[in-house]
Amino acid sequence: MYTLYYSPGSANMLVHLVLLECGAPCTLVRVDLDAGEQRSAAYLALNPNGVVPTLVIDGVPHGEAAALAMLLLERHPDAALAPAPGDPGRADYLQWMLCLANSQQPLFRQWFYPGDHLPAAADNIKEAARIGIEAGWSRLNAHLATHGPYLLGESFSVVDLYALMLMRWSRNMPRPATNWPHLAELATRLKSRRSWKQLCDAEGLVEWA
Amino acid sequence: MYTLYYSPGSANMLVHLVLLECGAPCTLVRVDLDAGEQRSAAYLALNPNGVVPTLVIDGVPHGEAAALAMLLLERHPDAALAPAPGDPGRADYLQWMLCLANSQQPLFRQWFYPGDHLPAAADNIKEAARIGIEAGWSRLNAHLATHGPYLLGESFSVVDLYALMLMRWSRNMPRPATNWPHLAELATRLKSRRSWKQLCDAEGLVEWA
Ligand SMILES: N[C@@H](CCC(=O)N[C@@H](CS)C(=O)NCC(=O)O)C(=O)O
Ligand SMILES: N[C@@H](CCC(=O)N[C@@H](CS)C(=O)NCC(=O)O)C(=O)O
Repeated sequence: MYTLYYSPGSANMLVHLVLLECGAPCTLVRVDLDAGEQRSAAYLALNPNGVVPTLVIDGVPHGEAAALAMLLLERHPDAALAPAPGDPGRADYLQWMLCLANSQQPLFRQWFYPGDHLPAAADNIKEAARIGIEAGWSRLNAHLATHGPYLLGESFSVVDLYALMLMRWSRNMPRPATNWPHLAELATRLKSRRSWKQLCDAEGLVEWA
Repeated sequence: MYTLYYSPGSANMLVHLVLLECGAPCTLVRVDLDAGEQRSAAYLALNPNGVVPTLVIDGVPHGEAAALAMLLLERHPDAALAPAPGDPGRADYLQWMLCLANSQQPLFRQWFYPGDHLPAAADNIKEAARIGIEAGWSRLNAHLATHGPYLLGESFSVVDLYALMLMRWSRNMPRPATNWPHLAELATRLKSRRSWKQLCDAEGLVEWA
């Protein structure tokens, strides 16, 4: 039913974690980013932006990690990975998903691909991304301090999985997310879930696993 | 029931347009960004990021423009501004919302606030943002050429309102969005809607109105 095009540890992690939490079986197809497979005609037909993840659902390919996570939640309501429509916590769920999608994730794109738009400015862009990412961790940490232990409060949700992926991406940065105590605590808590171990096995992640 | 904190022509436009399309009355409260009102203690209590929009729903403040638009769609399903959960078009709706939230909108943030994180690199960051924004318009234009006239195909949706806001933001750039023919056609089509005229009146927009 589901086929996930992935590269180990990339933006597919969020989608993969949601599938595991939902207990939804999926077929994994590895895309070799180093070899540029994401820019092959065959892959561009699935994902015109040439990025992972792509999730094929009943034969139709779809993209955008956060959108796929939100879609899977609608398809698997029993997994209860977020407040349902009409729930008083719904606004908070949407707000945090979009907050990560609108600020932290794009800054990581610039950290990892600083020369995307203007190669000559790559150093500056990488440095600005670092500062922005650290400011984002500080805001998340402050929020957890008063509203935790999870990003939506008492209950674990998909927002935590999204944050976990982004936190892992920071592991080799000058100040990894886990330098912030409440983020470190959240990461430890999430890494004890079965879905995390399954993910690391399936994607072959050894570092920060 | 709804109170929208706004600044004319800012990210509140998307939320405001959705409210107008839904026929949902709202009270407008202007935030003077030039005077720095968004950083006042009173406003930070509503919106810890110190940005517009904030939408107060039944006394509770919420942020993130795209998240608010998605929430309003759930609260006003009769407005039919997007495919409902379970609809085959649902994945596309989510994908396009997140695509704009994940790439085009953050690049505009960098175009308008290039010194946010690293003031010394502002010129480089602005220039990279311009290149990225233009690449985004090219992708959207190509999509409309084959899958238009609206971003989700035959039917108007909230994704078009999101794109319209971003297109207006480009009006004084070297290459405004309307330089791309299918985007220009989309803008013309959307500007003929009653919601657009109501928005321009309510927010006092005269340029590109
Ligand atoms: N907005 C996209 C971004 C995905 C993305 O940037 N993926 C990266 C890996 S984390 C990628 O595929 N990079 C390969 C490339 O850009 O060539 C999403 O959230 O799915
Ligand atoms: N991610 C936020 C971004 C909002 C945003 O950047 N708003 C701008 C105006 S378009 C703002 O309030 N700027 C004032 C400031 O940053 O001081 C959203 O989508 O609501």
